[in-house]
Amino acid sequence: MMNKYRLMSPGPTPIPPEVSAAGALPIIHHRTPEFGEVFTRVNEALKRVFLTENDVFTYAASGTGAFEGAVQNLFSPGDKILVVNNGNFGGRWVKVGKAFGLEVTELKYDWGQKADNDEVAEALANDPEIKAAVCVLSETSTGTVNDIEGFAKAASNVVTIVDAVSGLGACELRTDDWGIDVVVAGSQKALMTPPGLGFVSVSERAMRMHEEAKMPRFYFDWTAAKKAYAKDPAQTAWTPAVSLIIQLDVALRQLLDEGVENVFGRHVLLGRASREGIKGMGLSLFGPDEDLNSAVTAAWVPEGVDGKQLVRMIFREHGIQIAGGQADMAGRIFRIGHCGYFDAFDIIATIAATELALESLDFPVELGKGVGAAQRVFSKSGVTA
Amino acid sequence: MMNKYRLMSPGPTPIPPEVSAAGALPIIHHRTPEFGEVFTRVNEALKRVFLTENDVFTYAASGTGAFEGAVQNLFSPGDKILVVNNGNFGGRWVKVGKAFGLEVTELKYDWGQKADNDEVAEALANDPEIKAAVCVLSETSTGTVNDIEGFAKAASNVVTIVDAVSGLGACELRTDDWGIDVVVAGSQKALMTPPGLGFVSVSERAMRMHEEAKMPRFYFDWTAAKKAYAKDPAQTAWTPAVSLIIQLDVALRQLLDEGVENVFGRHVLLGRASREGIKGMGLSLFGPDEDLNSAVTAAWVPEGVDGKQLVRMIFREHGIQIAGGQADMAGRIFRIGHCGYFDAFDIIATIAATELALESLDFPVELGKGVGAAQRVFSKSGVTA
Repeated sequence: MMNKYRLMSPGPTPIPPEVSAAGALPIIHHRTPEFGEVFTRVNEALKRVFLTENDVFTYAASGTGAFEGAVQNLFSPGDKILVVNNGNFGGRWVKVGKAFGLEVTELKYDWGQKADNDEVAEALANDPEIKAAVCVLSETSTGTVNDIEGFAKAASNVVTIVDAVSGLGACELRTDDWGIDVVVAGSQKALMTPPGLGFVSVSERAMRMHEEAKMPRFYFDWTAAKKAYAKDPAQTAWTPAVSLIIQLDVALRQLLDEGVENVFGRHVLLGRASREGIKGMGLSLFGPDEDLNSAVTAAWVPEGVDGKQLVRMIFREHGIQIAGGQADMAGRIFRIGHCGYFDAFDIIATIAATELALESLDFPVELGKGVGAAQRVFSKSGVTA
Repeated sequence: MMNKYRLMSPGPTPIPPEVSAAGALPIIHHRTPEFGEVFTRVNEALKRVFLTENDVFTYAASGTGAFEGAVQNLFSPGDKILVVNNGNFGGRWVKVGKAFGLEVTELKYDWGQKADNDEVAEALANDPEIKAAVCVLSETSTGTVNDIEGFAKAASNVVTIVDAVSGLGACELRTDDWGIDVVVAGSQKALMTPPGLGFVSVSERAMRMHEEAKMPRFYFDWTAAKKAYAKDPAQTAWTPAVSLIIQLDVALRQLLDEGVENVFGRHVLLGRASREGIKGMGLSLFGPDEDLNSAVTAAWVPEGVDGKQLVRMIFREHGIQIAGGQADMAGRIFRIGHCGYFDAFDIIATIAATELALESLDFPVELGKGVGAAQRVFSKSGVTA
């Protein structure tokens, strides 16, 4: 039977048809008023999504590139930073810090565990030389979302850096209200745009630290970006990814039309329905069962089932692309992404396909039980009524 | 009157309709056999366009990012390099080298002048500590193309780095035959793809230098790229710009269907017709009048004409986007790009529009004289017969 392709991975994520269509528009020159108009609108919209008055710089790069840029722009070799590591991406930022010669204090947690912000405060109190603290908003590798408001409070004496690559525009993140200095994000998650754009918002305090920072840099240099943004109309320092920015313009307008608070609310429901669906079919969640976890739902592969086969079967038999586990969790967990352009029936289809695949793999499931549990979440909320 | 939009800038450049259409395809997950198949095909096609057996690494980045990556991957702080600077981009690589703490010997030429490879050899002989030499293939800022075969010979004792961002796939460049170690390129010129992808090909000798290089790096790290490329199917180290790579796949197939040698030949004609058109309407070329100059044609703005107004008028009245001069040349020269998806009638339209705009600006032109000169180039070649 024909199966439609449904991308339910935690990134890249599906994009709205209007954003797809914009990807087929002709390429325009970037040093023109025409592109300047688009780019100015994008910059204003990004601020509204980041919930900040700070500049948000856009790079042709993945989130990892924008993150590396933050390290180059903020520090000098030998500087001390604190990195909260409770998953694959927290672990990556430890590696980036070390690659750039920083002294990294690592606050390590088991995958799936949340960061303890009392320990963040303690680690910073123990070493007043630490200049900045890094925390991941939504750990794509586990679905676990850290309490960033608490993190920003605990680390308020140093520059705070939040990796919001997965999460920004889905999980609640109030950059200015919570006092976060640097937020790194990417285009391919809740911003409903193809991968290839990295973003960074920079507070005044972070900009002052940047001015003292001696790490070599060029492509990601914030001073070069700031200078280009100050032009009329605003420009990027180097050739921008024109087509992706034109697509982003369409995507951000859709996001703002829905409303940032409504988008947060929708993601809470998507996460809740996914978790109820998983539990409803008799499986166990990986990580805490809480409404913060609104970007990715991770679940244990049940005993007797081959996790890689399960993910493959859901794709091959049903056309739905979910993700397996990363690193040590490969084959042991599976992950459903719902960060971005997702609605109730995307979740319902995915839960239904998971039930069908488990049945094919001789795991005892009662078809419809998980689906019903997911439906009840939407029914109670009145969203699909 | 309605004017179609015609992008005749030296980058970004127009893309074929099939490449546009591919930009509207749904986003697929990158860690899958489906994307792996595309990416493997792209990697093989890139080698055929770069004319190399070396790995060609693809980054979500502009050409400047891929160039910075080469500096991070090849050197340790304090290393000595030679940079040929005969335009805006040569000048940029001097800045990148200095930003990363290299000792840069600059071989400087006036804009529009070609590099003298005897002087390259001399500079290297004078300082045996220099580890690498950088030269730009086609200086987008001036249209001038350097003799890279001669450069590679003159610099054969050190690692050679060629900035082919503008030029690769248009101007003759035989990476392996000429013994070039590192070639940097971008998607948005002759590769007929939107901006947002940077490329670098790396010889064995460059890879060995990389292994000794101590510059901090992460995002652009060649070892990480090599490890990801060795997987089956090949992957990128970080999330790739999926949609741009899918578009590149279509563009590269078109380029290889035309044939690399035919593509070089077409660009020689496009450049020759542009230069004859410019001279035919009584203007003067900026830089040498030779067939190497096949990516960009630069011309002096005639006395009594406002160069910025000329470029604006060609766009506003005729829909054709050419480019003005950069830096000191702003307002003094104008540039017609023909590097990528261009045919005879793109050049003819641009020459015709330039004649019409000059007439409107009260500069004495005989309409059709430049156009006729351009036509004769194509007529003699038999291309449009």
